[in-house]
Amino acid sequence: MKLRQIGELKLLQEVRKKFSSTDSSIIVGIGDDAAVIAPQKEKILVTTDMMNEGIHFDLSFTSPFHLGFKLVSVNVSDIFAMGGRPKHLFLDIAMKKDEDENTFWKMYEGIFSAMNIYGVSLVGGDLCAAENDMVLSATIIGAGDKTITRSGASPGDKIYVTGTVGDSACGLEILKRLTDESKEIIKNLEYWSIGVLKSKDIIEKLYFHHSITPSPYSNTIDWNIAEPLIRRHLMPVARDSAEIANYATSMIDISDGLFIDLCRICDESNVGARVYLNKIPMSDEMKKTAEIMKLDPIHLATSGGEDYELLFTAPPEIKFEIRNSKFEILKTTCIGEIIEKDRIVVDKSGKESALKTEGYQHFGTSG
Amino acid sequence: MKLRQIGELKLLQEVRKKFSSTDSSIIVGIGDDAAVIAPQKEKILVTTDMMNEGIHFDLSFTSPFHLGFKLVSVNVSDIFAMGGRPKHLFLDIAMKKDEDENTFWKMYEGIFSAMNIYGVSLVGGDLCAAENDMVLSATIIGAGDKTITRSGASPGDKIYVTGTVGDSACGLEILKRLTDESKEIIKNLEYWSIGVLKSKDIIEKLYFHHSITPSPYSNTIDWNIAEPLIRRHLMPVARDSAEIANYATSMIDISDGLFIDLCRICDESNVGARVYLNKIPMSDEMKKTAEIMKLDPIHLATSGGEDYELLFTAPPEIKFEIRNSKFEILKTTCIGEIIEKDRIVVDKSGKESALKTEGYQHFGTSG
Repeated sequence: MKLRQIGELKLLQEVRKKFSSTDSSIIVGIGDDAAVIAPQKEKILVTTDMMNEGIHFDLSFTSPFHLGFKLVSVNVSDIFAMGGRPKHLFLDIAMKKDEDENTFWKMYEGIFSAMNIYGVSLVGGDLCAAENDMVLSATIIGAGDKTITRSGASPGDKIYVTGTVGDSACGLEILKRLTDESKEIIKNLEYWSIGVLKSKDIIEKLYFHHSITPSPYSNTIDWNIAEPLIRRHLMPVARDSAEIANYATSMIDISDGLFIDLCRICDESNVGARVYLNKIPMSDEMKKTAEIMKLDPIHLATSGGEDYELLFTAPPEIKFEIRNSKFEILKTTCIGEIIEKDRIVVDKSGKESALKTEGYQHFGTSG
Repeated sequence: MKLRQIGELKLLQEVRKKFSSTDSSIIVGIGDDAAVIAPQKEKILVTTDMMNEGIHFDLSFTSPFHLGFKLVSVNVSDIFAMGGRPKHLFLDIAMKKDEDENTFWKMYEGIFSAMNIYGVSLVGGDLCAAENDMVLSATIIGAGDKTITRSGASPGDKIYVTGTVGDSACGLEILKRLTDESKEIIKNLEYWSIGVLKSKDIIEKLYFHHSITPSPYSNTIDWNIAEPLIRRHLMPVARDSAEIANYATSMIDISDGLFIDLCRICDESNVGARVYLNKIPMSDEMKKTAEIMKLDPIHLATSGGEDYELLFTAPPEIKFEIRNSKFEILKTTCIGEIIEKDRIVVDKSGKESALKTEGYQHFGTSG
């Protein structure tokens, strides 16, 4: 059934029924003029992020489930990046009137799946028609006692990054090059389960579009290599900062790229940074794919956006190795140090050059 | 200059510079991953509303200033409708890359103008590109001790409405019928000052498009009659509920129409209502315009949306007459009473019939 045949009120009633929360801090949830949340003793954290069709996502390879999941993750990531805990979710969703009901509910399944991971409750929002493009916007309210801004880094602090970087940008490069048939497979994947994207059929390879052959690289890629990268792009999982927040002096989540986001810490903290290229953590899958696709893995890792890893600084006496987060074992890697003023990159041979952020928009999809 | 020539970062820096708040409750404002607000002793109210080009607004007669102003008002109205005080504003704005910088800043002027009226601070948001349609979404965080929901009405309570209803829908009917030249005049009005829309030139009449002549009504309308109605549609002012909240048992703001919004109170309170048509407050300008345009004023008043008046119930012993609000003298009118179960309309002659909400979407512009 088309959305216009169902109507806004009926859809909202259904959402209210399906996603009503039992969170005791919610005094008034979905269904009134505004939500009412009990007073809280901690500081209130608020973030909002928008995702627009054609700008932030491409429906030729993105399923509504992925979209819903990612919408929650990118907002949760901003709360984690402040050292807070995400609590309450508000949604603004605009879809075309002739959109199928199924699209709507699949998107809500993705939203709900992410809500469960992060322990977030849906408390309110707005649902309306769109003339052309689908638009998703979310606001998350969180709480935290100690909040970590971008402005607390001092010379001498070490610079750390969680996980690996460049995976999401590499996943997007794969997705953009796929044949229509391979894109269709991605769109129709069974949803995320125990950390991998699944299909009803066994997938061995994905195919690249013939327009890029005679190709400088292979016209296929193994599923086992592509899957973790594609998943990082379509369904990023935000990194819980609970432990990191005890030590970090400044923090940001990597949404636009490692270097551009490091520069934001430098700008706000009024400091410089020295980064060692050979220390930047990269996944084997990303390095392998970059080789197949003749891309520069260092460029993907330093300028690729949407990894949603945490980039933070901490005093040198703190030793980070492997730390447990709520969701997984979170690896952190020291990639350099905060210095007085300059922004410097050190290459494999030890040669220093100025850190450049040009080109990050080639991979960044944020507008 | 086009927005793409300026870039998101530069625009955000400018917004941060121009709209930085001195509100002491804001610990971290614009420019970090999330905003941080000091803990508050009162309950936290949150509302979010989206406005989409082609669905909620028509750029042929709506200026960016009007849009910005209305975006804030409709969200503030939701906070007032709960009996709360609006405090912190978050914006998600999507505009085409080739949009002129001027459009962006005019919209912010409208936002800022409304922020000043309501005493709201801009604390964060997201700015991104749109493929086709302009999309504006706002979230407002408010505070309040006593919150008034839609569910507290009891049989015997009187039903009240602030101001007059049907003005916004009537204003929209005027706007839709205007010639391109008259639309252009409306778009280029000097901004709201001491309660009226102004023009550099003296406007005496607005002209209706010839496609609706030979017309059942006049092909012009006097500016003095049209202006208050058009203003109510383009730049609604939310009604401060501070005094009303001391007495009200239930409350809602009229966004979709008097009858549909009254039915929402009935649904949530599990009660009925009896409404007297001859008591519904209508402005002289609306009645006169309805006559000129051969429209039913009662239909406009009961089914027209976007008045953003407050509809509330209060025990019969409370006498509401004229009450001062923060912004203006707020007239309240008793239009009926809450009863056990049925929803009844009483006409001029005293004849009762079932209250019908059909047709409200003809005038409602919310999706």
